[in-house]
Amino acid sequence: MKIVLDAMGSEMGTSVEVEGAIQAVKEYGHEIILVGDETVIKKELDKRGHYHGKISVVHAPERIEMHEPAALSVRRKRKSSIVVGLDILKREEADGFVSAGNTGAVVCAATLSLRMLPGIERPGIAIAIPTMRGVSVMIDVGANIDPKAIHLFQYGVMANAYSRYILNKANPTIGLLNVGEEESKGTEFIREAHTLLSKSKLNFIGNIEGRDIYVGNTDIIICDGFVGNVILKVSESVIDTLVKLLKKEVAKNIIAMIGAVLISTAFKPLKKKMDYTEYGGAPLLGIDGNCIIGHGSSTPKAIKNAIRVAAEFKKQDVNKHIIEDLETK
Amino acid sequence: MKIVLDAMGSEMGTSVEVEGAIQAVKEYGHEIILVGDETVIKKELDKRGHYHGKISVVHAPERIEMHEPAALSVRRKRKSSIVVGLDILKREEADGFVSAGNTGAVVCAATLSLRMLPGIERPGIAIAIPTMRGVSVMIDVGANIDPKAIHLFQYGVMANAYSRYILNKANPTIGLLNVGEEESKGTEFIREAHTLLSKSKLNFIGNIEGRDIYVGNTDIIICDGFVGNVILKVSESVIDTLVKLLKKEVAKNIIAMIGAVLISTAFKPLKKKMDYTEYGGAPLLGIDGNCIIGHGSSTPKAIKNAIRVAAEFKKQDVNKHIIEDLETK
Repeated sequence: MKIVLDAMGSEMGTSVEVEGAIQAVKEYGHEIILVGDETVIKKELDKRGHYHGKISVVHAPERIEMHEPAALSVRRKRKSSIVVGLDILKREEADGFVSAGNTGAVVCAATLSLRMLPGIERPGIAIAIPTMRGVSVMIDVGANIDPKAIHLFQYGVMANAYSRYILNKANPTIGLLNVGEEESKGTEFIREAHTLLSKSKLNFIGNIEGRDIYVGNTDIIICDGFVGNVILKVSESVIDTLVKLLKKEVAKNIIAMIGAVLISTAFKPLKKKMDYTEYGGAPLLGIDGNCIIGHGSSTPKAIKNAIRVAAEFKKQDVNKHIIEDLETK
Repeated sequence: MKIVLDAMGSEMGTSVEVEGAIQAVKEYGHEIILVGDETVIKKELDKRGHYHGKISVVHAPERIEMHEPAALSVRRKRKSSIVVGLDILKREEADGFVSAGNTGAVVCAATLSLRMLPGIERPGIAIAIPTMRGVSVMIDVGANIDPKAIHLFQYGVMANAYSRYILNKANPTIGLLNVGEEESKGTEFIREAHTLLSKSKLNFIGNIEGRDIYVGNTDIIICDGFVGNVILKVSESVIDTLVKLLKKEVAKNIIAMIGAVLISTAFKPLKKKMDYTEYGGAPLLGIDGNCIIGHGSSTPKAIKNAIRVAAEFKKQDVNKHIIEDLETK
């Protein structure tokens, strides 16, 4: 298995990707092609000893920064790690592509270069989220912020295949995110998506609300990319805010400080459960290829797990199942 | 000050409203008109001694249930507590209306019966949310799930008046919720709203993201009612899920249990800070009247605070300021 890794993606810089690549080589034995500034990458590799048998480097001198406009930067920076990396995949010289870089740019470059799967109109980013009942998948979290109803139906088909073959759920339940459970709720666009999903052979259980997501009431949550993006960022920030406020209060009080030390054993498994780095990256579903998107603030472990997901995605041939299901569901 | 209170609204039943009304009478001295099933209300009043000098009862035998379709139920149940209560306001026999009932039905009935303020096209629910920096206002959280750009601009004008006169913020900052900070981000509808807000004299600081909300980066957060509704429900559920998971972990371990007891002193002020019942109800802004919406699971304290907000809303004549600002902002 050979995975292309954008070595200029994450906010923390190339050292994260190089470290993640080395961990993936050690743990899974996959081959990694690091794409980015050759000098920087080699320096990071040298620091960590030599893995040149399993790790190769392809030079790409440009970097698409996090806040660059997606379409424009992809058009202009043909020598960026994202564009060069996806070209390797396009030439079928690798099995998958992983990037923790500018999500919009990855979506744009992947769509332009790899094209869509037959029958799929728009890509969607599917992210695994921790819930009370295990792991659910939310799609889309930002590939397509203004989708049509048919796209939401296709998200259902794609996330269904992903849940079955990567998350090993036999018959995943699907919920459509709405402002109420009744069929009549929501905008025209959402009601139309409800109709399409109801008519399908997918395991669609109807509308769900914001409060159902983390309870884990469905295995798959379908929403438009605008809403999904906001949900992800709000969720991260709620937890962050809570922890910061709690730390502030704890610091005021010696009894509470002792309490914090004693309770920390209970926080640890919780932290592991809520830790997105455990789940690896989020696949960009719908494109004719294997493209995994990581969080901008990925750690080496998150990169390693994203590489694992890319390899599994290829091995399970998720795209083949999506194409098959599109005809039968 | 005379406030009409829907006594059949909250999920927990009339006892909550009656208790909240009594607390408001004691604390603020306002007069309360309880609207709902006379027998039930009087029984609850009798249990708590007599407050008939300050509390009167208007009989309304019907109840609009939480999951009834809004428009239909308002049309059919003319004798419901919501419709009867708003009629009292319409006849100018009271200064404000408070309900913890079916939000959609309140919005629909208030819009039909009280009509919009001159120049305002659609109503918006403005909710006060706790942040790292104090309290911010998010508008809209569900009155209008498919707004136009001009409505979002008008939300800005309305929330600005509310923040100034009820939350005492001299020149509140306004952010437009989007998937990125750059002007070019978002759907056409959001970009259009960005242009309208930019051209206005409001203190608009640009796009904000989901992660900015609870940090308190702006005093006002503008979003469409679909997104706002989802955000509220997701936020509640993230905290709920965290607490439940933590309790589960704590129960496994005696050391952690002791820690939980010791740390609880730090949780208390945090709980107070995050407690929505402290902030009272959420005004339905834009209608030609004074209508405060409470959470379905309101406690008596939440009802009491909603009554307080209703009285302040009237006293400060927020609607007058909205109309003035609409012409000058």
